[in-house]
Amino acid sequence: MGDKIVGIIGGMGPEATVDLLTKIIRATPAKRDQEHIRTLVDNNPRIPSRVEAILGDGPSPGPVMAEMAKNLEKSGAHFLAIPCNTAHYYLSDVKEAVQIPVLDMIEETVKVLKADNIQNVALLATTATIATKLYENKLTEAGINFILPAPEYQEKVMETIFAVKSGDLEGIQKYTDEIINHCLELGAQAVILGCTELPIAYKNKEKYKITFYDPTEILARAIVRDALS
Amino acid sequence: MGDKIVGIIGGMGPEATVDLLTKIIRATPAKRDQEHIRTLVDNNPRIPSRVEAILGDGPSPGPVMAEMAKNLEKSGAHFLAIPCNTAHYYLSDVKEAVQIPVLDMIEETVKVLKADNIQNVALLATTATIATKLYENKLTEAGINFILPAPEYQEKVMETIFAVKSGDLEGIQKYTDEIINHCLELGAQAVILGCTELPIAYKNKEKYKITFYDPTEILARAIVRDALS
Repeated sequence: MGDKIVGIIGGMGPEATVDLLTKIIRATPAKRDQEHIRTLVDNNPRIPSRVEAILGDGPSPGPVMAEMAKNLEKSGAHFLAIPCNTAHYYLSDVKEAVQIPVLDMIEETVKVLKADNIQNVALLATTATIATKLYENKLTEAGINFILPAPEYQEKVMETIFAVKSGDLEGIQKYTDEIINHCLELGAQAVILGCTELPIAYKNKEKYKITFYDPTEILARAIVRDALS
Repeated sequence: MGDKIVGIIGGMGPEATVDLLTKIIRATPAKRDQEHIRTLVDNNPRIPSRVEAILGDGPSPGPVMAEMAKNLEKSGAHFLAIPCNTAHYYLSDVKEAVQIPVLDMIEETVKVLKADNIQNVALLATTATIATKLYENKLTEAGINFILPAPEYQEKVMETIFAVKSGDLEGIQKYTDEIINHCLELGAQAVILGCTELPIAYKNKEKYKITFYDPTEILARAIVRDALS
């Protein structure tokens, strides 16, 4: 019962937050309700668009995220997590707003890739995440070769992400296969599903001859590790 | 952007809370993140067992639920919802603790059954929910005939619920068919999945010749209705 409470700065998008909660439950060794960890979730889809802000076309979501972080800390959270890759561009806004630790999903993901000895990895992410170089910088530091889809495939990645956000079940499946084939052609041995909407599109990972890294899954395991520590 | 924020007293169990969040997303007419509603979720699986408390074998979860409700109100929730049927036995503790409205999932469910002109309905629920007569009283008031499974089938309902709670995928499917056949034999035209774990066991509703009422789904629609009103 002395386990820690995790606060989740969620809603970016709402589906991704639900996906994280599901993965936390699966990553927890529990047989009954009372063995699961407590999460405080601010599932706030009204946060200004990260993509629009980074591409120079909208207000920064940083202040809203900092406000949510403070509220979660006040409500009793012992540490925080953010289930949105792009939003990690504003990680320092969040860290400065609170006294409690904030998990870095991107750092956790790169740590796992490094431990698995991955050499060449493709990044599937929003154009905004790519523009921030969040993954690029950390992968390069770790000595991992970093592959990006060609522009026409990057557009297909974005269409897949927006299909998940709008619940367009047909659109979600439309490009999944050709995106992975493209990554294989570029020499990737692994792929980072670097937008929290993408694991929802790639539910059948077994059918592809590539290793998937799902930052949401990795974040879930880091949350359970820190909550039970 | 003037839409209301819903506070969710969750974690009873954690899967049921995730199921509610998923159903809220599906019930919301949204094309982009910013059109979804904001939820504040206290996903607290450490709440004392409702089943044990009601069957006379453990502390009341009422005070913890009241504390969570106050915290959610303070954090900015405009109204509250509780995705757990059995926990509705403590609804008055929650209502007394806060100034904001609290949705009654059981009342909302009976309203829908009444509007659909259902005459005979079977209740699948925890033994504790049945003991509280939460559904029985409201169904009787509404003039709807109320059917309970025979004791040996009630045990199979409980085993199914605990299989969901422990993530036992085989156990989840073990009795689903025979439970519904039993309800049909008893003359039920409809069945209430009166424990928030049960919709997770009955994902393939189409295969049965009975109408399902899922209180979690009904609660999700009520939340979206009230949040957007």
